[in-house]
Amino acid sequence: MVFTRRHLLLSISFLISWNTQAGTIDSTALLSANLSASEVNSTAPLTIEPLSWWAGMHNPKLQLMLHNNAVPTDAAQLKVEITSKDVVFEGIEQTDNPHYLFINLDLRQAKPQTFDIRIFAGNKQLFQLPYTLAARAEGSRERQGFSNKDVIYLITPDRFANGNPSNDNQADMLEHAAPENADGRHGGDIEGIRQHLDYLAKLGVTQLWINPLLENNQAQYSYHGYAITNLYRVDPRFGSNQDYQRLVTEAKQHGLGVIKDVVLNHIGSNHWWLKDLPSSDWLNYPQHPDAKNATTSPAASFTSLSSTNPGFTSHRRTTVQDPYADMQDKRDFVDGWFVGSMPDLNQRNPKLATYLIQNSIWWVEYAGLSGIREDTYSYADKAFLAQWSKALMAEYPHFNIVGEEWTANPITVSYWQKGKINADGYTSDLPSLMDFPLYEKLLESLNEPEGWDTGFIKLYEMLANDVVYANPSQLVLFEGNHDTNRIYSLLKENLPLYQMALTYVMTAKRIPQLFYGTEVLMTSPTKDRHDGVVRSDFPGGFANSKVNGFSGKGLNAKQQQAQAFIRTLLNYRKHSAALQTGDLLHFVPQNGIYVQFRCAAKQAAAGNACYQADADKVMVIYNKNDQAQTLDLSRFSKVLAGNSSAISVFSEDKFELNQSLVLPHAGVMMLELNHQ
Amino acid sequence: MVFTRRHLLLSISFLISWNTQAGTIDSTALLSANLSASEVNSTAPLTIEPLSWWAGMHNPKLQLMLHNNAVPTDAAQLKVEITSKDVVFEGIEQTDNPHYLFINLDLRQAKPQTFDIRIFAGNKQLFQLPYTLAARAEGSRERQGFSNKDVIYLITPDRFANGNPSNDNQADMLEHAAPENADGRHGGDIEGIRQHLDYLAKLGVTQLWINPLLENNQAQYSYHGYAITNLYRVDPRFGSNQDYQRLVTEAKQHGLGVIKDVVLNHIGSNHWWLKDLPSSDWLNYPQHPDAKNATTSPAASFTSLSSTNPGFTSHRRTTVQDPYADMQDKRDFVDGWFVGSMPDLNQRNPKLATYLIQNSIWWVEYAGLSGIREDTYSYADKAFLAQWSKALMAEYPHFNIVGEEWTANPITVSYWQKGKINADGYTSDLPSLMDFPLYEKLLESLNEPEGWDTGFIKLYEMLANDVVYANPSQLVLFEGNHDTNRIYSLLKENLPLYQMALTYVMTAKRIPQLFYGTEVLMTSPTKDRHDGVVRSDFPGGFANSKVNGFSGKGLNAKQQQAQAFIRTLLNYRKHSAALQTGDLLHFVPQNGIYVQFRCAAKQAAAGNACYQADADKVMVIYNKNDQAQTLDLSRFSKVLAGNSSAISVFSEDKFELNQSLVLPHAGVMMLELNHQ
Repeated sequence: MVFTRRHLLLSISFLISWNTQAGTIDSTALLSANLSASEVNSTAPLTIEPLSWWAGMHNPKLQLMLHNNAVPTDAAQLKVEITSKDVVFEGIEQTDNPHYLFINLDLRQAKPQTFDIRIFAGNKQLFQLPYTLAARAEGSRERQGFSNKDVIYLITPDRFANGNPSNDNQADMLEHAAPENADGRHGGDIEGIRQHLDYLAKLGVTQLWINPLLENNQAQYSYHGYAITNLYRVDPRFGSNQDYQRLVTEAKQHGLGVIKDVVLNHIGSNHWWLKDLPSSDWLNYPQHPDAKNATTSPAASFTSLSSTNPGFTSHRRTTVQDPYADMQDKRDFVDGWFVGSMPDLNQRNPKLATYLIQNSIWWVEYAGLSGIREDTYSYADKAFLAQWSKALMAEYPHFNIVGEEWTANPITVSYWQKGKINADGYTSDLPSLMDFPLYEKLLESLNEPEGWDTGFIKLYEMLANDVVYANPSQLVLFEGNHDTNRIYSLLKENLPLYQMALTYVMTAKRIPQLFYGTEVLMTSPTKDRHDGVVRSDFPGGFANSKVNGFSGKGLNAKQQQAQAFIRTLLNYRKHSAALQTGDLLHFVPQNGIYVQFRCAAKQAAAGNACYQADADKVMVIYNKNDQAQTLDLSRFSKVLAGNSSAISVFSEDKFELNQSLVLPHAGVMMLELNHQ
Repeated sequence: MVFTRRHLLLSISFLISWNTQAGTIDSTALLSANLSASEVNSTAPLTIEPLSWWAGMHNPKLQLMLHNNAVPTDAAQLKVEITSKDVVFEGIEQTDNPHYLFINLDLRQAKPQTFDIRIFAGNKQLFQLPYTLAARAEGSRERQGFSNKDVIYLITPDRFANGNPSNDNQADMLEHAAPENADGRHGGDIEGIRQHLDYLAKLGVTQLWINPLLENNQAQYSYHGYAITNLYRVDPRFGSNQDYQRLVTEAKQHGLGVIKDVVLNHIGSNHWWLKDLPSSDWLNYPQHPDAKNATTSPAASFTSLSSTNPGFTSHRRTTVQDPYADMQDKRDFVDGWFVGSMPDLNQRNPKLATYLIQNSIWWVEYAGLSGIREDTYSYADKAFLAQWSKALMAEYPHFNIVGEEWTANPITVSYWQKGKINADGYTSDLPSLMDFPLYEKLLESLNEPEGWDTGFIKLYEMLANDVVYANPSQLVLFEGNHDTNRIYSLLKENLPLYQMALTYVMTAKRIPQLFYGTEVLMTSPTKDRHDGVVRSDFPGGFANSKVNGFSGKGLNAKQQQAQAFIRTLLNYRKHSAALQTGDLLHFVPQNGIYVQFRCAAKQAAAGNACYQADADKVMVIYNKNDQAQTLDLSRFSKVLAGNSSAISVFSEDKFELNQSLVLPHAGVMMLELNHQ
């Protein structure tokens, strides 16, 4: 453990200094909060998590996890004192690992303060620990999560921009920078994002989803961030906890929210827990061969591993809902490890569940987040997921969380959303999910030739499946992410198809999400997965870039065209109630042309606003024909009744809406309808 | 009209004789109930429908439709008298066609009887019509519809067996027999089915779904039966109404129920209504160019036809549920004609709705049916479908109806089933639907090579979609029907795959359905549709057959093997509570092997019966490997705990269930587990 973390040594009577300015705890001092109780064992670090907390949270309960090799086995001997009149000590709990102590507090009456936690064995004081309850930032509880008004921009931080080359390598971090290695660390960081907030704001995005920034002190392949080794520390190669706080603050000043990428299913195999598991059931398959230092004699309740059950997830996600699935098949999906370097957390352990919930809330409150993207959603225990989402949404009623359920089947995705009435009675408070089904259908339909049952009709018919969702408009639709190949490549580097895809995502009745670099036509192979290549460096973000996507320098004509197109699209959307929250009306595709309307009613009324003459309307025409087409408008007369002309959002041309429209070539036309 | 129908002429004072034996109305005398009111217009036939009714029905209301060219226009002048003390005359209604008169009766107090309906214009008696209310057969209301205990056998009556060659051609029927023409009439009939009831019973089926038997007096391509020209008359080339009645009676004696194929969406273009439509809104698109004698000036409410809207259904069935679909796109699916020879009925007309509901009930009651299969279900008006299914199920609470919704998407199918909670609030009383999605996935999964996401895994994952259905076990799963290509051909004439498919259908948690001739490996092309070939003559059912599937004479070795296999499978199922109504448990397919269990609990208990030691269990093992495989049984230990050995249903071999099972070659193994 020592090799991965910095420790603060203290004697029992020595108190470390805490920076207790309201809402801004000095994360350098707090970092990892490893405290050594030197009188007991001068080399054994003492850890307390959460690092700090806040007064006035909706949930008054707090459970602190204390770790030290010298905590006595016999809990009956332990005594805890809290040096605060308004913090109620509710008791301690232990697990089958005596090195861990869980302290339960009730903060209902607690004001912002720093108090001491004193721990005695009999009459002997073992530890005296300062603990801070900060004041909450104003409006923290009422914060607005990302919504249909937003456009999310996904950044892989190692690959976006290297704002601070001096942090690329760290003495206490195993993996060093290797910019020429597609799977290595390239040096991108929080500072790089911060330096380009202006570019992002002008591009027209309004939320930044950043792939995990927390410490990933793995020996190799750590740049992606999903093998977290410290759940309370930003990876020093990305910056500090304070840098993250500052990024969020400055992003807000640019009109940008920040969405944290949270991983509940697993941790990195170099997480310090692996040296000394908090309990024998802290992990699923603790006897996993990849858990080299973990428990070798798991409790009897654990399924034994064998050649047919090597302890990895089966990835058979339908087992979650399947009314006929075998109970072990269900476990094989949820309990199996994702990969050997990512031990699977057993969230059925209530202390771990509380730890993870508090950790998520800590970051929202600490950094000032506007949302969470939760990784490999369905791979975690589903009862825990319900509990986690409920706790987050109870703490922040207007917050937003989007879960990743990667399947083309909307039935499978719909299971997890808040409000869904499930056959097995499962309920959840998760507001949003990534819309993989619609994403995959979008690509399929654009890449296929038009036919009776191919092409646009598949996209059209897919939307009818929205009936399985409790709230389809709250799904996040994307044009790509860090796990998909690049959309420009997937669409055969065809600019009209690219423009159709991007317009579809940005005008769908969804929350749209863009992947960094899409605006400058970043490419990738199209078969199989090539994560390191998909997540290539954003041009201009790193030393020696000949091309600079931020300034536009060196971009070729198509890249310039694409970037201008995205800017126009996003900045138009930013002020269009029709595109943000309007009703959707679409028409059965005919002759390779697919027409959609988004319409915002002037005032609430029954029925689709697109049939209301005075609604604000945007007409989007997708056309796959290379030759010029004449679109007869009579089919849309019920929608166009109140409108005689229209302005093209992209070309600014004006069109009369009397008889027909000429579509000169393949591509997308987006018309803002004028009232008569 | 004269050329198609027989008429009974009567003067006003002459009453035809009615055979009023309880429940058995003389259908020869009643046939079409065309009565000419000679004093008014000696050549104009008078029609009254329903032909008769019953006393003691659950719904006491009855609406009679009277058609005669001479019914006066002015309804105010008309007076109706009913010569019965317990039949309440509630009034008359007319449409915009004065030749039709609708008489509303309340039969709440009515006993079985024949009464007269007298119609006066002022003081002048125009008609005196006898009308019979028969006594209901005992247990009629409580009849048991087809269920999970049954195996349905679908017969295309023109192609199964020609039991009465003398009825093949009829003077009043346009199309004559042409056995050598794949799309012509081959002469099969009700008598042919009747003669082979013993064969069918021994094969092990328990329900006969017979493609429509009603009059299809179309000039060509009429054998299939879906262009009905008289909704109260069995086509004379198939036999008479009485023959149908007798078939049902004798089938019952063989343990076989009969399911009627009902068509609510359309009629044949030679239906007599087309000469004189009951109202200008009786049809959708009455101005359709194929409706040569129909209304040419439809009401303003009708959409006009054009080159882009030629009045045929769009077949875009997702528009029914799609929350974003355009209103005209919705109409284009439902209101468009299926084909030019099948005018589309506008069931939004309440008199037509009543007519169709009464017609369905009439046949159930008249013939003694155990179910209805409803054709092109979603193409009819959905509010009407709800009303129709509700009326049928209210009349016969234990009845069953299966609708045809032909799509691979379970979300689309699930919309129509009773108990489904739909996003748009639509509810229905339809108990069952054809399971096209599972049928298509079954074929796909069997035909594909096994892989991570191909082969059995698709079938396995498909079942997880059962959560979208209100009641998935009530769906009818089939191996083929008159609209699909032949399964043996679709499975590349591979007998092990065929046996897997048939076993899957018969052991699924569904109501299974077989298509005639599958048991003797009837074949067809596999690309596109070849209805006339798919619906080839059953061998032995027609003169000059060299091969006889009924007797087995001339069947080749594979056919014999298949037939014996089906007999064994069906007759085993007939006595297996596990296969009929047991719980299903299935395991993620591995190594080309897919294992399912069906288990019937000894007594009701929570959880899947397959985990209960004393349940009756059947284990079905599907194996695609050509080479011998050893199946490790430890994975199934929670199910096999109470069982030490098993008997193969097909080979009668005994197996010990200690360690593993050897699967010698590709195919299916079905084991009845023995209790220890």
